Amino acid sequence: MNIQNLIKQNHLELLFQQGLFGIEKESQRVLADGSIVTTEHPKAFGSRRFHPYIQTDFAESQLELITPPSKTLEEALRWLSAIHEVVLRTLPEDEYLFPLSMPAGLPPEAKIKVAQLEDEEDVAYREYLVKSYGKYKQMVSGIHYNFQLDTEFVDALFNSQNEQKSAVDFQNDLYLKIAKNFLRYQWVLLYFFSATPTVDKKYFRGSSPLKPNQYVRSLRSGPFGYVNDPEIKVSFENLQAYADSLEYWVNSGKLIAEKEFYSNVRLRGAKKARDLVKTGIQYLEFRLFDLNPFAPYGMTLEDAKFIHYFILLMAWLDHTASQEDIELGKTRLAEVSWEDPLSPTAYSVEGELLLLEMQNMLNAIQASDEIKSIVKEKFAQFENPGDTLCANVVIAMEKFGGDQKLGADIAKGNKKNALERFYALSAFDKMELSTQALMFDAIRKGLKIEILDERDQFLSLQYGDHIEYVKNGNMTSYDRYISPLIMENKVVTKKVLAKAGFNVPRSVEFTDIESAVKNFPLFENRAVVIKPKSTNFGLGITIFQQGLQNRDDFAKAVEIAFREDKEIMVEDYLAGTEYRFFVLGGETLAVLLRVPANVMGDGVHSIKELVAMKNEHPLRGDGSRTPLKKIALGDIEKLQLKEQGWTIDSIPPRDQIVQLRANSNISTGGDSIDMTDQMHESYKKIAVGISKAMGAAICGLDLIIPDLAKPAEPHLKSWGVIEANFNPMMMMHIFPYIGKSRRVTLDVLNMLFPEMK
Amino acid sequence: MNIQNLIKQNHLELLFQQGLFGIEKESQRVLADGSIVTTEHPKAFGSRRFHPYIQTDFAESQLELITPPSKTLEEALRWLSAIHEVVLRTLPEDEYLFPLSMPAGLPPEAKIKVAQLEDEEDVAYREYLVKSYGKYKQMVSGIHYNFQLDTEFVDALFNSQNEQKSAVDFQNDLYLKIAKNFLRYQWVLLYFFSATPTVDKKYFRGSSPLKPNQYVRSLRSGPFGYVNDPEIKVSFENLQAYADSLEYWVNSGKLIAEKEFYSNVRLRGAKKARDLVKTGIQYLEFRLFDLNPFAPYGMTLEDAKFIHYFILLMAWLDHTASQEDIELGKTRLAEVSWEDPLSPTAYSVEGELLLLEMQNMLNAIQASDEIKSIVKEKFAQFENPGDTLCANVVIAMEKFGGDQKLGADIAKGNKKNALERFYALSAFDKMELSTQALMFDAIRKGLKIEILDERDQFLSLQYGDHIEYVKNGNMTSYDRYISPLIMENKVVTKKVLAKAGFNVPRSVEFTDIESAVKNFPLFENRAVVIKPKSTNFGLGITIFQQGLQNRDDFAKAVEIAFREDKEIMVEDYLAGTEYRFFVLGGETLAVLLRVPANVMGDGVHSIKELVAMKNEHPLRGDGSRTPLKKIALGDIEKLQLKEQGWTIDSIPPRDQIVQLRANSNISTGGDSIDMTDQMHESYKKIAVGISKAMGAAICGLDLIIPDLAKPAEPHLKSWGVIEANFNPMMMMHIFPYIGKSRRVTLDVLNMLFPEMK
Repeated sequence: MNIQNLIKQNHLELLFQQGLFGIEKESQRVLADGSIVTTEHPKAFGSRRFHPYIQTDFAESQLELITPPSKTLEEALRWLSAIHEVVLRTLPEDEYLFPLSMPAGLPPEAKIKVAQLEDEEDVAYREYLVKSYGKYKQMVSGIHYNFQLDTEFVDALFNSQNEQKSAVDFQNDLYLKIAKNFLRYQWVLLYFFSATPTVDKKYFRGSSPLKPNQYVRSLRSGPFGYVNDPEIKVSFENLQAYADSLEYWVNSGKLIAEKEFYSNVRLRGAKKARDLVKTGIQYLEFRLFDLNPFAPYGMTLEDAKFIHYFILLMAWLDHTASQEDIELGKTRLAEVSWEDPLSPTAYSVEGELLLLEMQNMLNAIQASDEIKSIVKEKFAQFENPGDTLCANVVIAMEKFGGDQKLGADIAKGNKKNALERFYALSAFDKMELSTQALMFDAIRKGLKIEILDERDQFLSLQYGDHIEYVKNGNMTSYDRYISPLIMENKVVTKKVLAKAGFNVPRSVEFTDIESAVKNFPLFENRAVVIKPKSTNFGLGITIFQQGLQNRDDFAKAVEIAFREDKEIMVEDYLAGTEYRFFVLGGETLAVLLRVPANVMGDGVHSIKELVAMKNEHPLRGDGSRTPLKKIALGDIEKLQLKEQGWTIDSIPPRDQIVQLRANSNISTGGDSIDMTDQMHESYKKIAVGISKAMGAAICGLDLIIPDLAKPAEPHLKSWGVIEANFNPMMMMHIFPYIGKSRRVTLDVLNMLFPEMK
Repeated sequence: MNIQNLIKQNHLELLFQQGLFGIEKESQRVLADGSIVTTEHPKAFGSRRFHPYIQTDFAESQLELITPPSKTLEEALRWLSAIHEVVLRTLPEDEYLFPLSMPAGLPPEAKIKVAQLEDEEDVAYREYLVKSYGKYKQMVSGIHYNFQLDTEFVDALFNSQNEQKSAVDFQNDLYLKIAKNFLRYQWVLLYFFSATPTVDKKYFRGSSPLKPNQYVRSLRSGPFGYVNDPEIKVSFENLQAYADSLEYWVNSGKLIAEKEFYSNVRLRGAKKARDLVKTGIQYLEFRLFDLNPFAPYGMTLEDAKFIHYFILLMAWLDHTASQEDIELGKTRLAEVSWEDPLSPTAYSVEGELLLLEMQNMLNAIQASDEIKSIVKEKFAQFENPGDTLCANVVIAMEKFGGDQKLGADIAKGNKKNALERFYALSAFDKMELSTQALMFDAIRKGLKIEILDERDQFLSLQYGDHIEYVKNGNMTSYDRYISPLIMENKVVTKKVLAKAGFNVPRSVEFTDIESAVKNFPLFENRAVVIKPKSTNFGLGITIFQQGLQNRDDFAKAVEIAFREDKEIMVEDYLAGTEYRFFVLGGETLAVLLRVPANVMGDGVHSIKELVAMKNEHPLRGDGSRTPLKKIALGDIEKLQLKEQGWTIDSIPPRDQIVQLRANSNISTGGDSIDMTDQMHESYKKIAVGISKAMGAAICGLDLIIPDLAKPAEPHLKSWGVIEANFNPMMMMHIFPYIGKSRRVTLDVLNMLFPEMK
């Protein structure tokens, strides 16, 4: 079988470049000085029994962060970024993630606790490792890179040949070819990506094998790294031989389990090697990679792409490495790992030839210019060893005064960056903030997330076999369909709530001035609001708080309202303050007061300056990327100031509140103040009842309440509901300007998955 | 208290004219010759235990149709029309509603069955009536007119005076004033609206009191009508006296119950007169009115409006009738009822004075021109008795050869009219046909309907305390909110269905030509459809049924698709026929095949003529007012003909099908063919599963199936789902062009109210 011809003849070039990618990244939790913590795995990260994203590797202190299988590397790294942000923001204040593979500030061995997993076997295995290798050697971290060829590609390739009759055998042969060639040529990847030039002396049980000031390319992949006894040789000849030899070493007691075989390629698809013969190899796990301390999450996108095409090259090559070749490859890996990172490698000619082969492949499969230029850059590193990652790490270590100091500095910087926009998930920043908050909580709890439509904010969440779909962070299967339809229609909302016995202001609609004015007698002497049916930040609204006395006044108000809409409402005016109630299930979880955009005078600064100062607040921004908005100084604000006798250059006296807007919307710079604890319980119960009457699981309700401390009475003077919203802004409750944060997205998840509580 | 001044001073003119209206209308079920049926009350009208609209009065044959309380008379008569259409379309084919109050073709008394109500007391009461009055007298029908003043008006009036301290007493006095004055002046209404000039001789127990060829104004309101023994006098002085005297007659055995007191005004608000003292009179029931045989439903809107203002006049008058006045009024009523309908009344001067008073009132309260002109017209009838309703009835009876023949003729015409657009409810014809069908079924079953928003197709349905809201006839609380959101997004729909293991065609989306063409290799050799993301009647679609071979062909198809939309899809082509499955709850209730607009040749007519003939079908029309649409002969149809080598003047041979459209939409003249019974059960089960996977209670699913008779197999060659619709057109299943009707609206109601089954 000539794979190159088959790909060409069957136009499989594009499918060949597709696949599934998954990244597993280990790192040690450390304190500010880079020393490894001795605390337990934080409870906030949920249960390791099932957590798909956040696990521990060997030790309690050693986090393992796992991305879901992703169709592109971009996608995989987005998840890696999001999981990191969740971890970094959830860690105790004094804890960080160490960015280097080799542990630096190692505690006394007795203080290192192996991961406290629920499965006893998992714990026992770790205890065995302690005995065999000592705890320090197990504290090394790295990245595992999982790759699956596109199944359609494998099928198409199989169908285009007739040497191999069995589809499973065909697939196994293909993956084995990749594995074998990878083991033969892996030293090339190590040359580019290794980053473990030195380590704390404590790490070695005896004396350090490193001479003073000696740096190597990779301690982790060298003989003192995370490797098996050289005696243990496993055949990759075929799956049968692989399973036979692996079982031999386990039966002989040299390995306690198959997973103790630390190959840089693992064949994946079944728990036992023997089972792979039947099920077939599904994907490969490449375990060679040191953490890149300069990449915020351990590996750059460019490097991940290079590795992808390197793996493809292993399939593309004309030849397949023999068992001897594999041993040669391993030896070469050991040699290169012990080379001086600032000097050229002894095998640069072989490396260059391989990259030439890679460039041929890229041309043959019409790969993108991007990957071609990445390969070109790496190619040059054979001539310029100082450009390799490891050389740069050495230089940085020298500059910072050692690995621990360098690591500590980077760790702190990474955490600071992750905390900067603490209300967002950077990788998913095109989605709404509330969906980002929900995803944050879902990642933390360990729900499997699938983004079904990013622009449409459509997620699938899964725990075990239980799947729930969520749109906009709060639209779920728990709401009845009729309830948003009721809320969408203000007239219907009022009728439904009135039928159910709740206080709603009476209102009448008109579609022309004449009939409205004709009905003046119906409103005479009543406190009413005349407003366009769709209100736009308060435009066109007239309020007669003291009661409507005069037909002409009414006619004028009607006319003003009709300037803004084709339909107007005359509604009973409710005196009091408007509060937003957030109801979920049978509970009012949050109550918020929204205050129109304003500044408070200090007798020193002008209004313009006060606005600029207030706009510095970390929650304020432009557009939809922050929970609160900056106060503008546009025409509407200037008009508002003028009505109060101010200009933007006026200097208001100390403690004087200056209103910049009439409407209280957060979107026009309003303040949000949490009032959940101040609100009398009776109103919270009413809000729950209103929500139930509309069949809503989640909704936002606007109530007018004159005195939030007095118990509710059953008439409009005590309270009235003026609006119901089926897509309430959750962000304003999670990140209020003043008052306690209410993490309502977590409540959404608890509602959807009560079994996880 | 001077009510006129209070209204003027407090600007209550408008509120005074508002109120609540309800109509109860009795009629006998008759055969084509006008003879009363002896069949039972049809089971199809649901249970009389609770039915709010369709009841029986005295006899099994005597229907009583009841409108809900309505804010306007227009609204009340709309309901009366709708209830009539439901009844007329549901009656056995040979049954009609007799349009005259006096029964004509009376069966032998023994054959008349009193209404078989569940409540034994109700039946016993009727048996008592039989003994006291005989069955025939109880067979008389009429209209009861219920009226409630606007409660706000009564409150405002009460608050504006200080003579009466108790609000309940004030309200009782007001209603009593209306009742007393009404009893005094009711003869005026009789003069205008009576319509019972004669009756079948059998009706009288002895010989007829009518001379040969004598006609009177109202047999029904005269001494031989539906009246009590003249001895029975009840005081209207005040509520106390009313209750006392009524109880006296019941205790003395002259009345078996309070309800046997056949006053032309009944005080309403409690079951017993005594309770009214506490609860207050809530509304009045006026029972004076004969059926108007010329009004399709017994009373015209104009007459109903006149009666409304006549009632208001009774409140408006300066004086309140004394007990003596009431007796005078009753005597006068008896006299006028026995007058010759073609001659002037003896009391025309009093009548004219009263109408002058009415005109003064209309001016004072700024009533509409419409009511003023109605009053003017009635005024003239004092001079022209030949214009009264009764005179016209006499003339018609003479013309048709008697009351029975006239009644039978009108009855048949009314039924014919009601059947003409059998798929619609005329009074609610601005709503969607599916909502009209649902309302039809709800009226028939006896669910209380409230239209919350007519334009928005928003209904409230109620049985006992159980309320359900329905929008568009099929959006309910049974659907989960997430399910329409899933179906709204085609990409999400596919992902959700694929996750759940259903067959969906693979598809890839592109936003530019270049990237689409670049991906050609992914589709090579596959049967695919290239289409704009939003398809508009098939424009821009290219199908490669035999597999895509050529990059240029693909590029051209991509280009064509991009002419129609900014986003295109390349989707696996599924060979087979598209069927629409209607799923409700756990069942596939209907399967429909939609065939593009077509005609079948007969070798004689041109295509143009064939189209015209096909368009004659009663289900076909323009716009949205019919279940099927007429076939157009526009550019698209002509192009379609041209491609087949036809013009609109071609005469296709016998049995040749001529396609006029490529798309199968009903909205462009397509045919609908019910295939529910032909479809293999296995596909129906799959459709139910798909609906469940999306959390939908009701949905429409489009499946491609090559062979509907063969059981489904688990791959795309056997079936595939291509679309899910959360607002499926129910009309096409209820009124298919060919095949069995599936009354799915009734299934919606059975789902919402399982307790009614």
